[in-house]
Amino acid sequence: MQRYFLDETVADYRESPILMAGEQYHHMIRVMRMKVGEKVYLVFPNQTSFVAEITEIGEEQLSLKWIEDEQKEKELPLSVTIASGLPKGDKLEWIVQKGTELGAARFIPFEGEFSIAKWNGKKSLKKIERLNKIAQEAAEQSHRVSVPEVCSLHTFDQLLEASKHYDACLVAYEESAKNGEKGNLLRTLKKLEPGDTLLVLFGPEGGLSKIEIDQLTENGFLPCALGPRILRTETAPLYVLSAISYEFELDS
Amino acid sequence: MQRYFLDETVADYRESPILMAGEQYHHMIRVMRMKVGEKVYLVFPNQTSFVAEITEIGEEQLSLKWIEDEQKEKELPLSVTIASGLPKGDKLEWIVQKGTELGAARFIPFEGEFSIAKWNGKKSLKKIERLNKIAQEAAEQSHRVSVPEVCSLHTFDQLLEASKHYDACLVAYEESAKNGEKGNLLRTLKKLEPGDTLLVLFGPEGGLSKIEIDQLTENGFLPCALGPRILRTETAPLYVLSAISYEFELDS
Repeated sequence: MQRYFLDETVADYRESPILMAGEQYHHMIRVMRMKVGEKVYLVFPNQTSFVAEITEIGEEQLSLKWIEDEQKEKELPLSVTIASGLPKGDKLEWIVQKGTELGAARFIPFEGEFSIAKWNGKKSLKKIERLNKIAQEAAEQSHRVSVPEVCSLHTFDQLLEASKHYDACLVAYEESAKNGEKGNLLRTLKKLEPGDTLLVLFGPEGGLSKIEIDQLTENGFLPCALGPRILRTETAPLYVLSAISYEFELDS
Repeated sequence: MQRYFLDETVADYRESPILMAGEQYHHMIRVMRMKVGEKVYLVFPNQTSFVAEITEIGEEQLSLKWIEDEQKEKELPLSVTIASGLPKGDKLEWIVQKGTELGAARFIPFEGEFSIAKWNGKKSLKKIERLNKIAQEAAEQSHRVSVPEVCSLHTFDQLLEASKHYDACLVAYEESAKNGEKGNLLRTLKKLEPGDTLLVLFGPEGGLSKIEIDQLTENGFLPCALGPRILRTETAPLYVLSAISYEFELDS
């Protein structure tokens, strides 16, 4: 579909007709021989772009009506899954809310060795239902085109099994921060390409046990620090998602 | 001060004497001719480093006692001030808590044109007091070496005045995200150097008015998008702080 850049932004372009004349009129009608009913992309100086349909063709100008805005890319280039060791209180609710705003594709709550919160079958179903509702609302509010999935509560073994399907797996590890590890997150992101899948695991408030960390590394998880400060379990996922957006979605 | 890397990590190194023999003993006593009371840096394989003092020198080994751990860098290389348009409810409390974890140096709450929350004099003092307490606790929890300051409520004009003292000023602007702006945050960070000061302004839930944005840009604020998704007023500051840590604190 032809694309035309207009000189002026029309505020109420969705309601009122857009008029075109001069060179662009000439190009559309004389050069492209467009007829009433044909569609084009129009782009305003403020970078708003939309599909418009020709409604009328005069001797020196034509008018079009707005059909729909152009779909811009709203999703993170990487498909990022956040695995959270069951935290206390309503922390998981806001990991899901903020993580959805920041572009996460999936959330997996799991039972960590140091998780204090426990979900029984019934409670678990209601929690997951509520978390999916929170994800839905956050996706709308943040103008996303897809709603992330909140998976059912996983055991640690189920999580290890699920991790086999990802292009890369990271685990945010407090000891890595304390020991000054600096490169694993950045190096991993530099290696990944749009479309790749990344699983990032975060322990509960108590952190991860030595046994859990050993099992994770044996299963291909790379421990990484998120800077030199110690982040809370509900803050760390937002750091990773923000860093991924910064790495993949911003230009210099 | 001389620095020696030890082969084994000693768990209770703060309490019990550290013994050194072999090559390092030779280097310290025979080559450097160190005496009792002299201090050195010792580093364990787990990268823990600390200052130790020689307490005893024998024929083939010497013993040292722990004095203090070495100060590792915990603070963001940039001094980042977060200016938040007064949001609803307790959102400011957690902007301060999470922002402190993520390394912010200062917080400035200001009255935005679209701020619904209003603070009168008395309420304002109590709020600021509480926010500073939250910053203190978050700084301890995240192992920071400095506690960020939460400033008193600023008017918009006071904020513009304060902005004159910064090396760079950014404003997170929803319209920038909608219009696909991608480069201003990253380009600004690439220009800044450790020690520089950065002010980042965020509107309240209602966003910023056209008049406010115009005044900000006239005063040298650069509007920037934080990726293509629309972030809540309490999420956006965490994105910026995480991006700064990713840019300045992680290595490839």
